[in-house]
Amino acid sequence: MADEWLRTGIGRSTPDAITVRGRDLATELMGKVSFTELAFLLAANRIPSPGEARLFDAALVALADHGLTPSVLAARLTWTGATESLQGAVAAGLLGAGNVFLGVVEDTARFLAAILATVRPDGADGRQDAAEAAVAEAIAGGRRIPGLGHPTHRVEDPRTPRLYAIAAEAAVPLPHMTLLRTVANAHAAATGKALPINGAGAAGAAWADLGFPPEIIRGFALLARTAGLVGHLAEEMTDPIGLRLWLDVEHRATYTADPGPSAR
Amino acid sequence: MADEWLRTGIGRSTPDAITVRGRDLATELMGKVSFTELAFLLAANRIPSPGEARLFDAALVALADHGLTPSVLAARLTWTGATESLQGAVAAGLLGAGNVFLGVVEDTARFLAAILATVRPDGADGRQDAAEAAVAEAIAGGRRIPGLGHPTHRVEDPRTPRLYAIAAEAAVPLPHMTLLRTVANAHAAATGKALPINGAGAAGAAWADLGFPPEIIRGFALLARTAGLVGHLAEEMTDPIGLRLWLDVEHRATYTADPGPSAR
Amino acid sequence: MADEWLRTGIGRSTPDAITVRGRDLATELMGKVSFTELAFLLAANRIPSPGEARLFDAALVALADHGLTPSVLAARLTWTGATESLQGAVAAGLLGAGNVFLGVVEDTARFLAAILATVRPDGADGRQDAAEAAVAEAIAGGRRIPGLGHPTHRVEDPRTPRLYAIAAEAAVPLPHMTLLRTVANAHAAATGKALPINGAGAAGAAWADLGFPPEIIRGFALLARTAGLVGHLAEEMTDPIGLRLWLDVEHRATYTADPGPSAR
Amino acid sequence: MADEWLRTGIGRSTPDAITVRGRDLATELMGKVSFTELAFLLAANRIPSPGEARLFDAALVALADHGLTPSVLAARLTWTGATESLQGAVAAGLLGAGNVFLGVVEDTARFLAAILATVRPDGADGRQDAAEAAVAEAIAGGRRIPGLGHPTHRVEDPRTPRLYAIAAEAAVPLPHMTLLRTVANAHAAATGKALPINGAGAAGAAWADLGFPPEIIRGFALLARTAGLVGHLAEEMTDPIGLRLWLDVEHRATYTADPGPSAR
Repeated sequence: MADEWLRTGIGRSTPDAITVRGRDLATELMGKVSFTELAFLLAANRIPSPGEARLFDAALVALADHGLTPSVLAARLTWTGATESLQGAVAAGLLGAGNVFLGVVEDTARFLAAILATVRPDGADGRQDAAEAAVAEAIAGGRRIPGLGHPTHRVEDPRTPRLYAIAAEAAVPLPHMTLLRTVANAHAAATGKALPINGAGAAGAAWADLGFPPEIIRGFALLARTAGLVGHLAEEMTDPIGLRLWLDVEHRATYTADPGPSAR
Repeated sequence: MADEWLRTGIGRSTPDAITVRGRDLATELMGKVSFTELAFLLAANRIPSPGEARLFDAALVALADHGLTPSVLAARLTWTGATESLQGAVAAGLLGAGNVFLGVVEDTARFLAAILATVRPDGADGRQDAAEAAVAEAIAGGRRIPGLGHPTHRVEDPRTPRLYAIAAEAAVPLPHMTLLRTVANAHAAATGKALPINGAGAAGAAWADLGFPPEIIRGFALLARTAGLVGHLAEEMTDPIGLRLWLDVEHRATYTADPGPSAR
Repeated sequence: MADEWLRTGIGRSTPDAITVRGRDLATELMGKVSFTELAFLLAANRIPSPGEARLFDAALVALADHGLTPSVLAARLTWTGATESLQGAVAAGLLGAGNVFLGVVEDTARFLAAILATVRPDGADGRQDAAEAAVAEAIAGGRRIPGLGHPTHRVEDPRTPRLYAIAAEAAVPLPHMTLLRTVANAHAAATGKALPINGAGAAGAAWADLGFPPEIIRGFALLARTAGLVGHLAEEMTDPIGLRLWLDVEHRATYTADPGPSAR
Repeated sequence: MADEWLRTGIGRSTPDAITVRGRDLATELMGKVSFTELAFLLAANRIPSPGEARLFDAALVALADHGLTPSVLAARLTWTGATESLQGAVAAGLLGAGNVFLGVVEDTARFLAAILATVRPDGADGRQDAAEAAVAEAIAGGRRIPGLGHPTHRVEDPRTPRLYAIAAEAAVPLPHMTLLRTVANAHAAATGKALPINGAGAAGAAWADLGFPPEIIRGFALLARTAGLVGHLAEEMTDPIGLRLWLDVEHRATYTADPGPSAR
């Protein structure tokens, strides 16, 4: 009665057992793999090596929180209006983790993967040339290079050197992370202005080096940010700012309405 | 210029540093605490002991996935219509993690906390009586007892004994988990029908024993489920079922429209 | 091959026709019923009379916007981070329309329906007594009465008398709206403090008088608010405040982190 | 104390009045403009003419429902898991209204606007040439032309001729709608295969002709779909399919797990 097209390799539940990626949840996973390793397994269908797990984990830690960002404010304001649904507040916070901010993890991975696709797998020299060409093309097109620059961390994003150091210890090939440095140097040479590799860009490159395709990488940033959102909502429950932020905005706002033309 | 009411202890970002719960992200957290420990720190404002971290982590692992649940199907169907926004698909999946399913973690913690609030901190005997009274009251009111019973795992939820075993090794006081067993026994005695402690109930009790108030506990279930959703969406990207599920539903559905009365 | 359980009376699509609630969309609905009437039809399975449609519509107009509320700010902040997904920004705005604010429409309808369920259908005198009893019970329990009072409109909510006037012209029985006035008077008599009927309460009572059960009434507030959110997002696209609000908050926020105890 | 940057022209609330787009809500809008006209006013900052309102409204009616689509199923499955939050179910439904389905309204408007930007305002002949060029370019690039074709309505989408007829009566210039027909004809001539203009494409062109920029047009599709979602959720409350759909999927699904390689 099973339908061929309706198939999944993620999870199954029977009266006696729950299986995740073909492994028994209770006896093979709980207490044996960490939540970080499980998240890796769920998306990659393999359990990471200790070095891979450490790098994957450090990138999650790096992106979990960045203070009172727009998406955090959205989550806390949502809680202000709807305390019956913690999932709604978390969801609202995730919805702002898109192309402008955390989407950078995906954009960086995609940008680097496109460069790597043009060079021979062993071609270090080819990478330098390809990086310079990609940078030149972006500059000519007036496009920002994903993963470079940060509005707050203008000289150096403190997460980046730390993530590179952890990656160096991970015994993992790092073509994307290495190329991202090449890209940053090429950009500095071409423009005379050094932009730091930002934390999201470094994390995106790290996740790409762990084997993930660009289109799922944003999901890890969402996972990381969920932990931050839960922390902010725990704080909102005891020391709320949503309501006071609203009242402050109402008090300060200028009303500019111009009734405009009317057909009536 | 800082406003007293606009305060947070979660995170801050300066040009040189990112701070999370008062700790330097790059030097004190990345590579030094796991993502699980960071999630604990974010919500509890303290780093857990190794035993606490292991129990917290095992509960996350326990709840990360349970197969093609309604919320997973919602996430995958959302991706079918909106591939530009992975955050939208994850958010849609989280929105179904509410009172009917994963909200059990919170309900169980709340039910147990209410019983514990009526007994002396050291009163084991009082707990037995209070548990029996709470069970009797629920039965009389026709209410289900949160944390007991599961539509699939009718005899035993495989996650539960495993989580209790991990908890026993954690060197953590376990008043909620212990009480949940007392409640389950009291229910079996009162009804003659043994219901298993379900995995969500056990996880909710575990998180309560780690010091978290009931109202934030649902947040950890959301964190766990986010990892599962990312896994399912990774699969959906390569082996989609959303579109085919829709076409199958369209094909099989009976249209029952009764135009009904009209004022026209 | 159709499955009995998989049935819907809402909509169906065939190669030649789209049917909504049993009516041909192109020939019977487009250009013949207004969007307001269609929304009524979709939820009630009948086309409203002109008076019903006018009352239903006026309540939608009443609740479409209330300035820079928390949910509007959440939507605009979400757009700040994710411009690829307008649906995400609208969804984030709706997620804050919950129990604290717009849920009042549902709570009021439920409160009034519970009173009406205790009196004979024709018993006006019974309603007075039942209203007084319900008010007394709420006061004794320290509960607010849904639909009464507003933080901004302390003397009178300008939407309320207008909605009552439109309702009076609608040739519709108004048991809920009438009872809400009785409740407001009973509350004033019992407390010595007159609270105005707020616009959400009046709208909830109006929708209940149009025959809708309490549990769907919040949906109309969501529909109304969607129009407001689209307006705000249109403004955000040309005159953004999300980014500046974030920077302002970052600038003004006090960081209170107490590293707290550590097990390490 | 008002801040210049924190300004809005949408709505304001004072103790005595609520203002929307510079008009008094109670006395100038409620009962005087329809909800459709208010939605137009909110986004356009002007009240539409009767013909404009009728066209705007008919496009909303056209897109409100299309049966058990993926986003409707997502909303109903979300309700299955979270009945405390109707806003969550509606939001989940909207999150699937993205680039694959309803985003077509925006894509069509954008495609047509790009063609119009290349021709003189009065240049009908130029439009023919420009349409042919745009079609040729899309075909050469292997891209679908937004607004053409529909998986169900393969010969004609029944909404399209009806919307064009209503538009013809609206006394509104229709450059986008007219151009869309030119594009459809050019596509048929170039490929030898006539694709119908779909309802979403026609609606997107209509909204563009009413003066809205492409980036907000998806918002009207979301407004329309919200009415459909509320209808489906009203049905789900009395005749649920979410739970049964889940059980059916669980029953039919094939579990394909391949444990995959492990580093352990």
